[in-house]
Amino acid sequence: MKIALAQINPTVGDLERNVDLIIREINKAKTYKADLVLFPELSITGYPPKDLVNRDSFVKDNKELLKKIIENSENISVIVGFIDYNNERGHDGRYIKYNAAALISNKKLIGIQHKTLLPTYDVFDEARYFSHAREHNLFDINGVKLGIEICEDLWDKNYDAKVTDILAGKGADLIVNISASPFQYGKRAVRENLLIEKAKKNQVPIFYVNQVGGQDDLVFDGESLAVDKNGNLIAAGKKFQEDLVLVDFDLKSRIGKPIAAKQYDEIQEIYDALVLGVRDYFRKSGFKKAVMGLSGGIDSAVTAAIAADALGKENVIGVSMPSQYSSQHSKDDAKQLSENLEIKYNIIPIKDVFGSFNKTLADLFKDKKEDITEENLQARIRGNILMALSNKFGYLVLSTGNKSELAVGYCTLYGDMCGGYAVLSDILKTKVYQLAEYINRNGIIIPQNTIDKQPSAELKPGQFDQDSLPDYKILDGILKAYIEEEKSKDEIISMGYEKEIVDGIVKKIDNAEFKRRQAAPGIKITEKAFGSGRQMPIINRYKG
Amino acid sequence: MKIALAQINPTVGDLERNVDLIIREINKAKTYKADLVLFPELSITGYPPKDLVNRDSFVKDNKELLKKIIENSENISVIVGFIDYNNERGHDGRYIKYNAAALISNKKLIGIQHKTLLPTYDVFDEARYFSHAREHNLFDINGVKLGIEICEDLWDKNYDAKVTDILAGKGADLIVNISASPFQYGKRAVRENLLIEKAKKNQVPIFYVNQVGGQDDLVFDGESLAVDKNGNLIAAGKKFQEDLVLVDFDLKSRIGKPIAAKQYDEIQEIYDALVLGVRDYFRKSGFKKAVMGLSGGIDSAVTAAIAADALGKENVIGVSMPSQYSSQHSKDDAKQLSENLEIKYNIIPIKDVFGSFNKTLADLFKDKKEDITEENLQARIRGNILMALSNKFGYLVLSTGNKSELAVGYCTLYGDMCGGYAVLSDILKTKVYQLAEYINRNGIIIPQNTIDKQPSAELKPGQFDQDSLPDYKILDGILKAYIEEEKSKDEIISMGYEKEIVDGIVKKIDNAEFKRRQAAPGIKITEKAFGSGRQMPIINRYKG
Repeated sequence: MKIALAQINPTVGDLERNVDLIIREINKAKTYKADLVLFPELSITGYPPKDLVNRDSFVKDNKELLKKIIENSENISVIVGFIDYNNERGHDGRYIKYNAAALISNKKLIGIQHKTLLPTYDVFDEARYFSHAREHNLFDINGVKLGIEICEDLWDKNYDAKVTDILAGKGADLIVNISASPFQYGKRAVRENLLIEKAKKNQVPIFYVNQVGGQDDLVFDGESLAVDKNGNLIAAGKKFQEDLVLVDFDLKSRIGKPIAAKQYDEIQEIYDALVLGVRDYFRKSGFKKAVMGLSGGIDSAVTAAIAADALGKENVIGVSMPSQYSSQHSKDDAKQLSENLEIKYNIIPIKDVFGSFNKTLADLFKDKKEDITEENLQARIRGNILMALSNKFGYLVLSTGNKSELAVGYCTLYGDMCGGYAVLSDILKTKVYQLAEYINRNGIIIPQNTIDKQPSAELKPGQFDQDSLPDYKILDGILKAYIEEEKSKDEIISMGYEKEIVDGIVKKIDNAEFKRRQAAPGIKITEKAFGSGRQMPIINRYKG
Repeated sequence: MKIALAQINPTVGDLERNVDLIIREINKAKTYKADLVLFPELSITGYPPKDLVNRDSFVKDNKELLKKIIENSENISVIVGFIDYNNERGHDGRYIKYNAAALISNKKLIGIQHKTLLPTYDVFDEARYFSHAREHNLFDINGVKLGIEICEDLWDKNYDAKVTDILAGKGADLIVNISASPFQYGKRAVRENLLIEKAKKNQVPIFYVNQVGGQDDLVFDGESLAVDKNGNLIAAGKKFQEDLVLVDFDLKSRIGKPIAAKQYDEIQEIYDALVLGVRDYFRKSGFKKAVMGLSGGIDSAVTAAIAADALGKENVIGVSMPSQYSSQHSKDDAKQLSENLEIKYNIIPIKDVFGSFNKTLADLFKDKKEDITEENLQARIRGNILMALSNKFGYLVLSTGNKSELAVGYCTLYGDMCGGYAVLSDILKTKVYQLAEYINRNGIIIPQNTIDKQPSAELKPGQFDQDSLPDYKILDGILKAYIEEEKSKDEIISMGYEKEIVDGIVKKIDNAEFKRRQAAPGIKITEKAFGSGRQMPIINRYKG
């Protein structure tokens, strides 16, 4: 049997275009003489559709479009994700809905399988929208007994229902899993090992197709996989790209030809995820050009390099906005970066506007010393300038702050936090340095001085990050433990960090929640990013 | 039996203080010789604790503190909400947790009842955190068979399990419901009727205790209620205030003395909710003083009046920030308002800073016409000034935009959207007018001209809201249908609105999602507010 894994890049809500994409891949699969072509979870709507699912019109339109796919399935079988409903309404008057897979064959709808395990943690919220499957049936195509499951159904560790085992127990010759599983650094091996383990244990081949592309704060990495009944990896799709993976598979032996294990570089994967995230955010929201502040520092340099790769150097505008506190090396480094990247570069000094603000506020502030007010004011003037360029020329502002800053609130709301998309908001500062090295792997793009110098916000004379914060290695260690691993203070202290430092950092993190609530969406690459997957109260007096 | 409903105002995360509050009320109940005192859902943690629940240390601390309540329960019975766990861990390594009620009597823990129905819609996300009850038992105090349920357990319409009916079926003499049910305009009657209906149907009295107070975007309205077996309302707690309601109830007849039905004014309720929301947001986050822009328009006037009521007139600072486009009446109206409210008032003209920005940007903008850029720039200068005052003097900025503006994006990100708390973000413009009339019920506070004049942003000469937007009555009708009732475009058109207008408004709403993602939290008063209860994708190409 010739099976095609169609890892497509749909756009949430763009139902008709998504269906066109599906039909395009069906036709391609036909030219390769595939018997069966698989599409990801909720392909028709794109994943995650979030509260669009609450609109009955949306759900109706999505199911109506399934017919168009059916019409285009002559001489081929298709499995495609969509939102199912049966005209049954809940007591709230809305349809009862299912995250579902349709099995279509030669212009007929053969069957529908609903999703059993509905992830409701981190960025996932499926219990908000869907009812779970009541039954698990096998489907017959060309004499093959097919078990169909959807994404989380494979990840059954935290659930009572073990869907893969149930389907295998019913005698499935082949299990297909249609997924929309977002990229997360370190998840690749876990995913592959889970497939291998489940296949071996049940002696059943599993073909897994995954969505690819960026959607708001998520990047789906594709890399669809097929394993045979012995748990050998026999096919893998491209990473971070659309792909149609063809597998000519012997369903009698259920054994395929193993492929070589791929080697991945962790930083390369993260870099590729960020590039795809930026590219798709722009493309899908209709923007072409990005503007960002270039401070001569490493965060804005890495952001600019990623943007240039994602959008093309002709679509990136760097702006240096020096104040009286900006060092010469900052201006030089920013200029050098823009030359290395061959991006547009503007210099807009903020001294006059800053002076004008100070004059305007002089009466009110006359008995007050200079403090953080004046620092934030500079950051906000820069934000205003970038937003003015955005308004005037239709650019989208990229904010350049990293996760370490955002965690401890070392950033200015409406200042450097301005922007439509925050490229590095899930990248700890120590990882920003690794990204810079990766960007420079074939020669200097980010000036060496940008990498070597001590980080500084340059908002007052002689200011360095480490005046207010512990060394970034220590800070990032604590942040990873507290935010990503959700460890308690005691647990972090028992890892070897000083109590006083841990207490101080945790307090800063909790106190900065109000800033993060108004932060731009960023790209999730860790197990816990700020944003929709971390729902902390702003008013929160817990000190533990 | 003498039963006390202790509707307290806990603070999320402030475990020790919450427990002190609980013990204070237990002691008060003892002085009234109460046999049983009831506290709201998750009283120890405050509701909703959100992702704090993911920290095992938090869950441990909360359960540890239950012991302190037990120690303080001499000669009284207590029912109190907390997070339960049994040292059982899920496969993810974390405790399996329950939203639970502890029944304590005379220094002993008598029993624990877990919550069955876990709301996971709108602002609720309990399936994210909790496992549901596996059993429903009755508990015995002084020979009374007590059924205990938690909040949503009463609201069983959309669920298969009917908890109240189950408990009544087991022979409960009395059902208590401990709740944390947020205020929502129009919900009061629904709540009361549900209690009455459930009591009558099962011929069982139900005593319902509700949390009071503000927490982030939610205001809990208290108003605990008791109904006897015939469905007669026999006691009601205060609205929007802490209260200890004492009911001397005959559990043989299970019949009480009906109280007169209270009359509520819809606008008064909304006003009271907003005042409590503001007051608690400041108190619980440690702020005293509010600053806000006063434009002479109705939104900032209503916001200032609410702030003065919530915080005291001495804690409110109004700032007029006129530009060259500001009319004389705007300045006069703002000044008059501040005099009527007796709040501090500053005038900070933005003309010089605006001029300085224009000069700084002149080179880059030299071939470009004036457009929305210059309008937004003025709004952002004002935002910067308010934030500078916030930084310098420790004020919290209140943003003054209403729900109609926020819906269609008629507001400037980082400009008038600046602020820590958005008082009117769930109030449609037409309701803002009703609030103004309510505020003026005993004499003019908001100048009549502010109410009468045509709304204008005054960001360019001769600009009025209705140049860009339909009449607010039409706009608000569409907004209510699309956002609050989640109706489709077709349904809205069939209500009698013009297709072209509906299409235009819906497009504006969907396109402004990126702004709202960075908006300040506001106070939810409708069935669907912007914020945590409305999870829309930013990239969203659905046109239906």
